[in-house]
Amino acid sequence: MKVYVIGIGLIGGSMAKDIKFLYPESEISGIDVDGDHLQQAKTLGLIDRQGTIDELKEADLVIVSIPVDALLQLIPNVLDTVGEETLVIDAGSTKALVCQMVEKHPNRRNFMACHPIAGTEFSGPSAALRGLFEEKTNIICEVEKTAFKLQEKGLKIFRKMGMRIRYMNPVAHDKHIAYVSHLSHISSFMLGKTVIEKEKNERDIFDMAGSGFESTVRLAKSSPAMWTPIFKQNKNNVMEVLEAYIENLQAFQSKLKKDDYEGIYNEMDNTNKIKEILKGIPLNKT
Amino acid sequence: MKVYVIGIGLIGGSMAKDIKFLYPESEISGIDVDGDHLQQAKTLGLIDRQGTIDELKEADLVIVSIPVDALLQLIPNVLDTVGEETLVIDAGSTKALVCQMVEKHPNRRNFMACHPIAGTEFSGPSAALRGLFEEKTNIICEVEKTAFKLQEKGLKIFRKMGMRIRYMNPVAHDKHIAYVSHLSHISSFMLGKTVIEKEKNERDIFDMAGSGFESTVRLAKSSPAMWTPIFKQNKNNVMEVLEAYIENLQAFQSKLKKDDYEGIYNEMDNTNKIKEILKGIPLNKT
Repeated sequence: MKVYVIGIGLIGGSMAKDIKFLYPESEISGIDVDGDHLQQAKTLGLIDRQGTIDELKEADLVIVSIPVDALLQLIPNVLDTVGEETLVIDAGSTKALVCQMVEKHPNRRNFMACHPIAGTEFSGPSAALRGLFEEKTNIICEVEKTAFKLQEKGLKIFRKMGMRIRYMNPVAHDKHIAYVSHLSHISSFMLGKTVIEKEKNERDIFDMAGSGFESTVRLAKSSPAMWTPIFKQNKNNVMEVLEAYIENLQAFQSKLKKDDYEGIYNEMDNTNKIKEILKGIPLNKT
Repeated sequence: MKVYVIGIGLIGGSMAKDIKFLYPESEISGIDVDGDHLQQAKTLGLIDRQGTIDELKEADLVIVSIPVDALLQLIPNVLDTVGEETLVIDAGSTKALVCQMVEKHPNRRNFMACHPIAGTEFSGPSAALRGLFEEKTNIICEVEKTAFKLQEKGLKIFRKMGMRIRYMNPVAHDKHIAYVSHLSHISSFMLGKTVIEKEKNERDIFDMAGSGFESTVRLAKSSPAMWTPIFKQNKNNVMEVLEAYIENLQAFQSKLKKDDYEGIYNEMDNTNKIKEILKGIPLNKT
């Protein structure tokens, strides 16, 4: 199997690792605008060789795992080049725009719009992990627009990686993912910012921080190059969830101001049911 | 060693476990307003027997690990009862009020005001863990007001549990802990609330949530009975940090509204330095 990974970072690199393990005979070529990343990916054994876009007509599978702004520009070019049997997948955290972008492309059938909900706060080839996708959800949008044989090819690989498959329309995906992923990143970044600003003259204060703080600011380590275009593409949904979040914080603040501790207790007690809701989420141990 | 644990939950129970392991000959008595918890603690082997406040004059060590409102009321009674050699420690997340409360107590020398920065989002005796305090920071306030021999006794036990010791004045403690702990809990509770409210009719949306979401809402599982009095006692500091947090979120929102993606990128890029800051924090693996 000839595999091309465009963007050999955390997600692309982890997919490359799994594919090399599951299909030892496969040849994995890497394409990346960052020469250092390419070199690292080769040294780490994530890829066998460097590839070029021109070669994609030979590819069985093309994984495009790059920031979602670059993705929108590149996917049409990739589809221009592919062969009949080539399956192209992406891994972007927004789905509406990419689906819209390829809608009328003559090779739309070669593309499967994917969002594997997996990752860590780290980035680059050295962050790649074998087994990252195990028991994670892969959301596939507009699956009916992908050629049936290519759907089968993709699903087989995803299942071997251990992923659960879920089908969704791209607009619904972007709306819900704003709540369960994009908002978490903003809350974490702004929490990190608040504490760094206020405590900048007291660097040694951070040894007062425990695992609870670490857990809530973990995502503030995420890559700005990846996240800025996600917030841009999903602006309307993100604006809406952010508004709701700020309103809830203000309501909490106002209860505290009025010494309404019964109200504060009830807020927390009601939210405790998140325990039940979270039960199914597999934790990332890294 | 005769040890009394008043409040046999996550913290008290974990201390009991460590003490039983480190000092196998010790006798651990439990006191708790919750009869079920007492029974569970006995079944789990956290305590040897049920104790009463009257017996405290015989105690070598009294650990008071109860919500901070109950703590304020109980500590003077405990100090009324203790013997010459009894060391009383607490584990509350606020320190200014408890230090003020005992300031003029004739047995002030028997008390050491402690805040071991350790825990999980779970509560009750079944949440108790051996080794919970390993490599965690224990903040001790106004140590000079504790009798020197009792300081030595306490420090020896804490060191055996693997804790790092840090001395601080109680007012500074409460100010800084609002940033690195109390704010994280509010941000997490309100994040959980926002998502539960908005997605209440779409329960199956939560399998879209990944480990990032889980990480940021983990603390929303925490006990309201424990956290409400903490927010009450530390109201002024919490109001201040919450205000700063909301302002930062609003600034982010306003950048997004104006399509200032360079500004958004820079915010995140600047906050990435939290990576360096967090390096020293030992994670809780539970």
